[in-house]
Amino acid sequence: MTRFRARVRVMPRSSILDPQGQAVSHALGELGFGGVGEVRVGRAVELLLDAASADAARADALQMCERLLANPVTEDYVLEGVEPAA
Amino acid sequence: MTRFRARVRVMPRSSILDPQGQAVSHALGELGFGGVGEVRVGRAVELLLDAASADAARADALQMCERLLANPVTEDYVLEGVEPAA
Repeated sequence: MTRFRARVRVMPRSSILDPQGQAVSHALGELGFGGVGEVRVGRAVELLLDAASADAARADALQMCERLLANPVTEDYVLEGVEPAA
Repeated sequence: MTRFRARVRVMPRSSILDPQGQAVSHALGELGFGGVGEVRVGRAVELLLDAASADAARADALQMCERLLANPVTEDYVLEGVEPAA
């Protein structure tokens, strides 16, 4: 077994209202940042897991997204990377 | 001015306790995922901004991280990408 580090990004679907993102967009404007459009705020998850191979780690991480990390009704997820942990 | 999409990842510092990550790690174990180690949960921010160039957009996004998106005491941020918005 090798220890891998997996990185997941979970974002609200574009069809879903994102009040946190709207608040950030508004606050950036108040701070003087011009030209800021839509902002969306999701979760970034980093996890360490043991697996026999990078492919197995990737498969496990995708299962974790399906079963816990992302809300299938409102969110999309991207598995951004799986690499051996240092 | 061109519209750019910037992607930021904001994570709790490794020296900071991350109760949300601990809860996710525990829940993954309860779901039957063996070999899950440390989990850390941060924020993923995607924003659209107008700028004269990709370099200017990158500089603006870094300023936004410094001034609003990340807590300088407890969090680290990474500007993961700046690209022209489709």
